[in-house]
Amino acid sequence: MTPHMTPSQFREYGRLVVDWIADYYEQIETYPVLSQVKPGEIRAGLPANPPAQGEPFPDILADVNTLLPGITHWQSPNFFAYFPANASGPAILGDLLSSGLGVQGMLWATSPAATELETHVLDWLVDMLGLPQKFKGNGVLQDTASSASLTALLAARERATNYQTNKQGCDGKLTAYTSTQTHSSVEKAMGIAGMGRANLRLIPTDENFAMRVDALAARVAEDRAAGLTPCFVTATIGTTSSNALDPIRAIGEFCRAEGLWLHVDAAMSGTAALCPEFRYTHDGVELADSYLFNPHKWMFTNFDCNVFFVADHTALINTLSILPEYLKNQATQSGAVYDYRDWHIQLGRRFRSLKLWFVIRHYGVEGLQYHVRQHVALAQQFADWVRAHPDFELAAPAPLNLVCFRHKAGDAFNRALLDNLNQSGELYLTHTVLDGKFTLRMCIGQTNTEERHVRAAWEKICQLAGALA
Amino acid sequence: MTPHMTPSQFREYGRLVVDWIADYYEQIETYPVLSQVKPGEIRAGLPANPPAQGEPFPDILADVNTLLPGITHWQSPNFFAYFPANASGPAILGDLLSSGLGVQGMLWATSPAATELETHVLDWLVDMLGLPQKFKGNGVLQDTASSASLTALLAARERATNYQTNKQGCDGKLTAYTSTQTHSSVEKAMGIAGMGRANLRLIPTDENFAMRVDALAARVAEDRAAGLTPCFVTATIGTTSSNALDPIRAIGEFCRAEGLWLHVDAAMSGTAALCPEFRYTHDGVELADSYLFNPHKWMFTNFDCNVFFVADHTALINTLSILPEYLKNQATQSGAVYDYRDWHIQLGRRFRSLKLWFVIRHYGVEGLQYHVRQHVALAQQFADWVRAHPDFELAAPAPLNLVCFRHKAGDAFNRALLDNLNQSGELYLTHTVLDGKFTLRMCIGQTNTEERHVRAAWEKICQLAGALA
Repeated sequence: MTPHMTPSQFREYGRLVVDWIADYYEQIETYPVLSQVKPGEIRAGLPANPPAQGEPFPDILADVNTLLPGITHWQSPNFFAYFPANASGPAILGDLLSSGLGVQGMLWATSPAATELETHVLDWLVDMLGLPQKFKGNGVLQDTASSASLTALLAARERATNYQTNKQGCDGKLTAYTSTQTHSSVEKAMGIAGMGRANLRLIPTDENFAMRVDALAARVAEDRAAGLTPCFVTATIGTTSSNALDPIRAIGEFCRAEGLWLHVDAAMSGTAALCPEFRYTHDGVELADSYLFNPHKWMFTNFDCNVFFVADHTALINTLSILPEYLKNQATQSGAVYDYRDWHIQLGRRFRSLKLWFVIRHYGVEGLQYHVRQHVALAQQFADWVRAHPDFELAAPAPLNLVCFRHKAGDAFNRALLDNLNQSGELYLTHTVLDGKFTLRMCIGQTNTEERHVRAAWEKICQLAGALA
Repeated sequence: MTPHMTPSQFREYGRLVVDWIADYYEQIETYPVLSQVKPGEIRAGLPANPPAQGEPFPDILADVNTLLPGITHWQSPNFFAYFPANASGPAILGDLLSSGLGVQGMLWATSPAATELETHVLDWLVDMLGLPQKFKGNGVLQDTASSASLTALLAARERATNYQTNKQGCDGKLTAYTSTQTHSSVEKAMGIAGMGRANLRLIPTDENFAMRVDALAARVAEDRAAGLTPCFVTATIGTTSSNALDPIRAIGEFCRAEGLWLHVDAAMSGTAALCPEFRYTHDGVELADSYLFNPHKWMFTNFDCNVFFVADHTALINTLSILPEYLKNQATQSGAVYDYRDWHIQLGRRFRSLKLWFVIRHYGVEGLQYHVRQHVALAQQFADWVRAHPDFELAAPAPLNLVCFRHKAGDAFNRALLDNLNQSGELYLTHTVLDGKFTLRMCIGQTNTEERHVRAAWEKICQLAGALA
């Protein structure tokens, strides 16, 4: 039998892994950004059966190299696809400590420091982002924006039905509202919550892909007239497709007047609010009932780390709490503590705030601001190059760090251009469709992306476009 | 501004963190197992505001020590509370690699190795646990059992309504069934899924706290007669409260006859099926539509890591898939790959299979079997001591590694005994209520628990009971 790894072995093997990661970052630009393997290729290289006896750790680590061709390198400075999931040294090491401590923070009592550090760091973030003070003491870390948006929807569902849906089940008459550009997670959440995807209204947008409040108001009125119960609106600060900015204040005023729960999804662009000059994107956020952003996208904190604020956390507790005998304890019954298990879907939870604490302390507020400004400046430079080129055009405003653009030669040309770019291995871009046209997305937010990477990307785009033409 | 941590700094600081963790494990028995701090005590020691400038990494790491009094030491060999969340060196280092690679495996294309290693390792586990072959190619890692049970419930809800609830919303007429001893996550899931907590039937149990199939059948018949639609049954292998074993085969045969989705929750005790002599606990599992167990409880894999199998993964995809334009890609459209984002609530996902792969390879199948047998043997020894003591009694059968017991002097005495034990800091136990009586739970599954720790725990229990009497 194989004994447990001793602390002294852990010291030795831990160094090997730390060095492996450092080597990886030193070499990362030599790999094709998008994995080029065929389906099944990685699996075919793995042994059919698990080993009967344990294997030496260095052998296990060496085999990670056999996986490398199947890795799409999200941490490459040439990764411009989707939204980033940018990591950093302090985040990785904070997460390592979380794994090492191995605490399970479902209740305050099961590790008070895990709960209290989380509350504290989230209160820091309220000030760092210029968010309303009402969010203090009302923040919780979730895994992803999908989970947080689902949680917001559930709380709204319950508030609208006096906490009866939770008990009796849905009646199919609650309606919710997003723009046509809102992230697909809200539609998924409508299905999960038993409210029905068909009861999500996709409100049309203006020429900048921002939600039209007049159209929202008209649809809510129509639904009320039909005997339905509108309860939930998601507004987005920086949509996934084009980084569009919904008018939070106007939507918020409407929601207040109508008694609708306003959820603000700033998954990507919340990070921009670190910088006062970008806080205009958040104008009206004090009208929100809930708000989320993802440090695991653009704040150098490795996945997963979603920050979720509500105006009143009792709405979450009233929706999600169950207290079986085996979880009862004196601290919970005193009412003096937060038990975060009642603030999300899961029961168990990692000590996830450690990595966020490490990131904020490593960079400081000014360091984080600096790097965010750099990314925005690089994206704006890229947008200028697009504007100045006779064959390319911008497909949407580029307020922050995402540039949507296309070649003027049409969809087939742009598809071919994208495929060629990604097959080159030199960079990785993804696409969307805007105004019915196939559009390339250049998102700049990777930790180690510098001006030279963005310049090389633009040169490659122009070169391949020229070759295709 | 603070620059990013360079690879060479990462080497240096990574060693510091690895050493910190090794030191922690060397000293862990010197800390009180259950944190003894008061609410707010840890937070009071943290600076009110985030730093404007970045701080040196060694200073950040040093401050982790200020959190230590607020840590409840789940990795202590004297942790016998709840269920374990046992970690190990290979798991922590596999998780470190996952953090370092920083890939986001929402789609096959966004890192093919993350998807293919996961499918492969989960297929290994089918054989390792002696599970039905139908689960091969139908496994997915989730964060927690709560999320996996919710996913199972959603798939059952949709199967029962021809995938119409997802679209139109619930009608409040679907019913689900668990025993009175089933984990609270199923009741929570009923609320989340819009099915209504009141539509969960808590079926009574027999003298061993196992679900009574006659009572289940009677309640299903009653609900059908009332015009309701039974759709989902959760059976548990090793309940949280007392490790009770529901009769899976009898429940499964009933579910087959009635067309009900059978979900088997083996969160804790699934690990026991590594050993052929404990597989009797899983008799009939081939009748299950879904099955889960948690390597993050008792298989040396740090939290979070839940294994979820279904008989047919198309039920998950039909329930949870949405494909917006910005996620479309050639591999997905070819149909030749799994996109695991359609198999759970979240969109984004970590490379979670790395740590599981490391654990299985480090220990080998025989090593894992050895350690599981050790834990069961220690628990059986403890149960024998309880049986032999004139003042104590077992409160439930102890088939595996959880022993429920109590002093014969009544609830107040047992409550006082538990408080005194936990305040001693020498060990940590939690409680439940069985047959209306306050009961102590001794769960043996911590990675480094040896015979000496269990013996010391029993001596402490006897000593404090003697002092209280």
